[in-house]
Amino acid sequence: MVQLFGDEELHRLYAKGSAKIIQSPSVFSFSLDAVLLANHARPPKNKKRKILDLCSGNGVIPLLLAKQTKVEIIGMEIQEKLVDMARRSVAYNHLADQIQIFHGDLKERYDQLKHSSFDLVTCNPPYFRIGSSKELNLKEPLAIARHELLCTLEDVVRACKFYVKPGGRVVMVYRPDRLVELLHLLSQFNLEPKRIRFIYPKAGKDANMVIVESVRDGKPGVRIIDPLTIYQEGQTYTEEAEAIMNGRE
Amino acid sequence: MVQLFGDEELHRLYAKGSAKIIQSPSVFSFSLDAVLLANHARPPKNKKRKILDLCSGNGVIPLLLAKQTKVEIIGMEIQEKLVDMARRSVAYNHLADQIQIFHGDLKERYDQLKHSSFDLVTCNPPYFRIGSSKELNLKEPLAIARHELLCTLEDVVRACKFYVKPGGRVVMVYRPDRLVELLHLLSQFNLEPKRIRFIYPKAGKDANMVIVESVRDGKPGVRIIDPLTIYQEGQTYTEEAEAIMNGRE
Repeated sequence: MVQLFGDEELHRLYAKGSAKIIQSPSVFSFSLDAVLLANHARPPKNKKRKILDLCSGNGVIPLLLAKQTKVEIIGMEIQEKLVDMARRSVAYNHLADQIQIFHGDLKERYDQLKHSSFDLVTCNPPYFRIGSSKELNLKEPLAIARHELLCTLEDVVRACKFYVKPGGRVVMVYRPDRLVELLHLLSQFNLEPKRIRFIYPKAGKDANMVIVESVRDGKPGVRIIDPLTIYQEGQTYTEEAEAIMNGRE
Repeated sequence: MVQLFGDEELHRLYAKGSAKIIQSPSVFSFSLDAVLLANHARPPKNKKRKILDLCSGNGVIPLLLAKQTKVEIIGMEIQEKLVDMARRSVAYNHLADQIQIFHGDLKERYDQLKHSSFDLVTCNPPYFRIGSSKELNLKEPLAIARHELLCTLEDVVRACKFYVKPGGRVVMVYRPDRLVELLHLLSQFNLEPKRIRFIYPKAGKDANMVIVESVRDGKPGVRIIDPLTIYQEGQTYTEEAEAIMNGRE
């Protein structure tokens, strides 16, 4: 059982499977980018490892990663409403022993979260600059999740660097149009980009998402792995996109 | 008629067509990267425009571009042997009115070549750091063309910036493993990356080439255009790769 408030709904986490997550059209709903990030994060399996998810929203990344690993996962989220949704979803899926949702601001530092202590840091940060959307209602939870209202990309990268272990990995999903800035910031904070995958909506179109995996204190040198295309002709998924949506592990 | 020296051979420029170029297995032979660069350079057509090709080798890029445009093209090359080969190829193809091969070092500045005067600068620079190949014969023409013996990537980007007009374009082909460094250098020299295309040898493999088009003083924001795959199953070219090899315009 789960308590739902306002326009909240309980949705399936993957197209197939029993795991569910609380969503809300007015507050936060996860989308394909979260599923792609979780699918490409390759979480550690050794029980002593730890994962941190920044900009955790309704906890979608921790919930998705918990399908792949049993290690401890902390999700940090700044919006109280979303923290509450995430905690109820964790409880609903009986994952309270594995996932902890931390109500915090990635620009602040906390005694409970040690620096340089996580083997993997994941993040699906806000993509849009504030200047690009003047008519934004700056208090809307959706606006905060999507726009750089409470943190900039530099704040995000700095926090990733702060929390990840030397030699640990940071995996982010982002928009390709800010790729130059993203790669430069990562490199500047000693998070050396090592694996990049571009996601294309369909053949002949520009990439609309990018997954970047960096290694703290890694050596320069990056692999651009094979492209992922989401749709075939028409609106049917490609084989690989379909497998990811169904929770391929 | 053309005079050939040593192990030089006269090869077709495109798989189809009458244009030919002097190659030499021991000195310089162009490869797919040059054909891809020329194909993606979108040279200006207006007669008042000018193109500069740096690291011009045996003049392959100017010769390929001359199939697409009638504007003046200057190729700059540091190795005298290659300058000589390029000039003989230009003469053989009756292009002496359009293409001039300039014997020079991109680290130097020359009265004959005005700064900020080219609408398009193309470059297929040496890809490899010197440290990576200890056994290199540092005087070999092939080693100079492929390794950073006479210029670094930073020298190349600085020269591109020096010669291109404000608002003009710089198109380079490079290896993806140094993408982070390349994008940062371009951006640092106000050559804002605007269009990137990754080239994959075949499905499921990492990209092995990248084409980057930058605009001097351009606004940040880059498009990652659809990926190009060279081979289908087996060793047959994909339709697009074949069209490029045949000199599609």
